[in-house]
Amino acid sequence: MTDPIRLGIAGLGTVGAGVVKIVQRQADLLAARCGRPIKVTAVSARSRDKDRGVSLNPYAWEDDPVALARRADVDVFIELMGGSDGPAKAATEAALAAGKHVVTANKAMLAHHGQALALAAEEAGLALRYEAAVAGGIPVIKALHEGLAGNAITRVMGVMNGTCNYILTRMELAGLSYDEAFAEADGLGYLEADPELDVGGIDAGHKLSILASIAFGTQVAFDDMTLEGIGRISIDDIRQAGDLGYKIKLLGVAQMTGRGLEQRMTPCLVPASSPLGQLQGGTNMVVIEGDAVEQIVLRGPGAGEGPTASAVMGDVCDIARGIILPVFGQPASSLKHAPAAMAEAPESYYLRMELLDKPGALAKVATVLGDSGISIDRMRQYDHSGENAPVLIVTHKTTRGDLDAALSALPGTGVMVGDPVALRIVDL
Amino acid sequence: MTDPIRLGIAGLGTVGAGVVKIVQRQADLLAARCGRPIKVTAVSARSRDKDRGVSLNPYAWEDDPVALARRADVDVFIELMGGSDGPAKAATEAALAAGKHVVTANKAMLAHHGQALALAAEEAGLALRYEAAVAGGIPVIKALHEGLAGNAITRVMGVMNGTCNYILTRMELAGLSYDEAFAEADGLGYLEADPELDVGGIDAGHKLSILASIAFGTQVAFDDMTLEGIGRISIDDIRQAGDLGYKIKLLGVAQMTGRGLEQRMTPCLVPASSPLGQLQGGTNMVVIEGDAVEQIVLRGPGAGEGPTASAVMGDVCDIARGIILPVFGQPASSLKHAPAAMAEAPESYYLRMELLDKPGALAKVATVLGDSGISIDRMRQYDHSGENAPVLIVTHKTTRGDLDAALSALPGTGVMVGDPVALRIVDL
Repeated sequence: MTDPIRLGIAGLGTVGAGVVKIVQRQADLLAARCGRPIKVTAVSARSRDKDRGVSLNPYAWEDDPVALARRADVDVFIELMGGSDGPAKAATEAALAAGKHVVTANKAMLAHHGQALALAAEEAGLALRYEAAVAGGIPVIKALHEGLAGNAITRVMGVMNGTCNYILTRMELAGLSYDEAFAEADGLGYLEADPELDVGGIDAGHKLSILASIAFGTQVAFDDMTLEGIGRISIDDIRQAGDLGYKIKLLGVAQMTGRGLEQRMTPCLVPASSPLGQLQGGTNMVVIEGDAVEQIVLRGPGAGEGPTASAVMGDVCDIARGIILPVFGQPASSLKHAPAAMAEAPESYYLRMELLDKPGALAKVATVLGDSGISIDRMRQYDHSGENAPVLIVTHKTTRGDLDAALSALPGTGVMVGDPVALRIVDL
Repeated sequence: MTDPIRLGIAGLGTVGAGVVKIVQRQADLLAARCGRPIKVTAVSARSRDKDRGVSLNPYAWEDDPVALARRADVDVFIELMGGSDGPAKAATEAALAAGKHVVTANKAMLAHHGQALALAAEEAGLALRYEAAVAGGIPVIKALHEGLAGNAITRVMGVMNGTCNYILTRMELAGLSYDEAFAEADGLGYLEADPELDVGGIDAGHKLSILASIAFGTQVAFDDMTLEGIGRISIDDIRQAGDLGYKIKLLGVAQMTGRGLEQRMTPCLVPASSPLGQLQGGTNMVVIEGDAVEQIVLRGPGAGEGPTASAVMGDVCDIARGIILPVFGQPASSLKHAPAAMAEAPESYYLRMELLDKPGALAKVATVLGDSGISIDRMRQYDHSGENAPVLIVTHKTTRGDLDAALSALPGTGVMVGDPVALRIVDL
C-alpha cells in the first residue's frame, strides 16, 4: 500500500480544479492519512487553456475523457463532467471496463443509470463512489451507508438544492417576488444552464433517489418520484406560512411504508423553529431517521469548490485506503425494485386560494372539502383589499387522494380565481 | 467473507442490551449490508440474572471479561463496561493480544490510554473502533476520520455532554437554579456515579481529546486540556447572556494554532441564533471546520440505548466488511506529541461580578481592566435592588493571559464581593 494511487480527472470546472488544489496543497497530509501518496497523473476538459487558478503542467492531457479513463497510469477515474448520459456515462463505463475505480459527483447519471453502473463496478470488484453527488461537502453517503448501517432507516429528508433555498430565503428576508429572487440567483450564477433542474426540483430529486436507494435497499427509482418545483410559491405564501409558524422549503422526503416506497421532492411547510426551518441560503441539510439512532441532522455547504472537492477527496482517500464497498449499501444484485407507493402517508396541508368576492363563496369551498372527507383545522380570509378574497386553509391530516379529489372539484364551485396552491406540512 | 462475524460483548447495561437487540432484530439487514451474518457468541456482565429486556440464552456467559476477550469463538470484542482502567482496559488489552478486533464506547479509556492501545492494535493489524465514545449516535468519528480526510481541519467544536446541556436548558426554560436543575437531572438518572465527570466537563473533555487527535494528527492529550465545569453558572448568567443575544453552553473547542494545540472544554457564550445556540436538552452537536469543506454541523442524540448501540453497530459493520484503518486517522506511530498552546487565541469575554455598593467601585474595576490591556465593549450595572451591585462587562478580544492578570488584580480593588464569573464568547 505504499505505491501512489494515481488519479485521472475528467472535468476541470470549479470542482475539478478544487480537487487538483487539494492534491497539491495537502500531499503530506493525504499520504499520512491514506498510507500512500495520492497523485494526479492525467486530466481532461473541454478547454485546455482556461485559467483555473492551478497549474496543470505536471499532468498528461487528454482531449477525450474515454481515453483518460483507459490510461494505464490511472487507478481512479474522477468524473466531474456532469450530465446523465453522453461523455460522462461513456467514460465511466470505459473506466469500469478497464478496471479503474470511479469517483463521481454526477447525481443525474446515478439517478438514471446507478443500478447498471453499480452492477458493473461490483462485478469487477471496483469502487464506484459519489459522496460529492449529494449535499456537497456533507459526508451524508458515508453516514447513511456506513455509520448508520446498524439501523433500519425509517425516513430520510433533506433540503439539497442550495439555489432553491437561496431563492426562498431571499423572498422571505428581502420581500422579493419569486421572479425577482430567481433573477437575482441567476445573476449570481447560481442556476444550472437549464434552470428547471434547480427550481423544478429535479436536481434535488436526483439526490433524494440516491439516498433512498441506500436507506431502503432498493434500486434507484428516480422516475417514481413525485416532483414539484418552487415556481408557484409566492411571497404571500411565505408570509402566510410565517404567520402560522412555518417556513417553506423545497424538501425531499423518502420513506418506506406499507404502501411501498414514497419519494417526493416538493415545497413543504416545516416548523420555523426546527433545524430545517432555520436553514438559510445555500446551506444543505439532511435528516436521517433510523429505528436505533432516532434522528441525525447533518448540515453543511451544498456546493462550491472546496466543499464538493472535499467530498470527492473523502472518496479518493477511502479507495487509497483499500476500502471497496457495495455501491448502494448492499450488493446491487440484491437491491429490490421497490413498488412506488400508490398512496402517500396522510399529512396536513396548507391551501391558499383566491375566491370571487361574493356571498357564500367560502361556504362552497368548505362544502367541497367536507364532501372529500377533508377536515379543516384553520380557515381564514385575509387582506381583503383587492378585488378577490384570498383564503388560507390548514387541513387536518388527509390523504393526497382525498386532497386531489377536492382540488379537482373546486373549480365546479364557480367561485375560484386561478388554481389553489397546496403545500404539505411536515412536522419534525 | 461469508462466515459469520462473532461478537463477544462485555458489559450489558443500556448500550450492551441495545447492541444485542439490534443484532437479533436486524439479522437479515445486517447480513445484506455486511455481506456476512453478524452474531453474538458470548457475553459478560456483573450480574447474570438482571432483566435486560432481551434473551441472553443463546449466548455463552463469562463472569470474567478478560476470559471473554480471549475466547476462540469471538472475532470482535465489544467493550461496554466503562472506566479508564480496571477490567475495561485489561480486557481490551487481552482482546488485542489475542488477535481480536475491539469496539468500545469508552471515552475515558481512550483519553487516557488511546495511544498505547492504538499502537497495540495497529501492530497486530486489528481494528480498534470507538464511534460510540463520542457524541452518541452521531457518526462523527467516521465523518472526521474518513469523510473529511481531504481537509486540513482548522477547528473542532462540540456540545457533547447531554447532562450539562439538559441542566443549562432547564435553568433557562424553567428558571431553575443550578442546584435545582442538577437535582432534577440526578432524579432522572442522567448523572454519572461521580457527577463531576459530567458537570466538571471531564466526560466531554475526554470526547474532545479524541476528536482533536484525529483532527490534528496528534496523540490524545487529555491532560493538556483546559477544563471548567458548569457549577458556577447562575440563572443570572443565563439571563444576562440571553439579553446580549447569547446562550451558555458547555462547549469544547480544539484548534491548532501557531502557539500549539489549544483544547478547552468550558462554559461559553454562543450566539442564540447559531445551531449550537439552538441546541436544547440532551442533544449533542459537533461542528467541524476544514480548509476545504468550510463548516459541517452534525446533530443527534448524545446518549441512550438505541443511538449508542447504533454507533457500536456501525463500527461492527465496518469490521465485518473488512475495513481496518489506523485508530486515530493515521498510524499511531506517526502521531506527533503536540505541545499544548502556551497562550490561547484571543476571544471576547463575558464577565459578571458583584461589587460593594460604594462610590467609585465601577471605576476601580474599569481601571484594573484597562491597566491589564483589556478594552471594554459593554459594561452595565443592573438590578440594583440587593445590597451589592451586580455588574456585567463584555470585553473586546483579549488574551487569556491579560484576562487572568486582571482577574488576579481585581481583589486588590477592595470592592469585589466574591469571585467574578468569566466566560468566553465564541462567535460562530
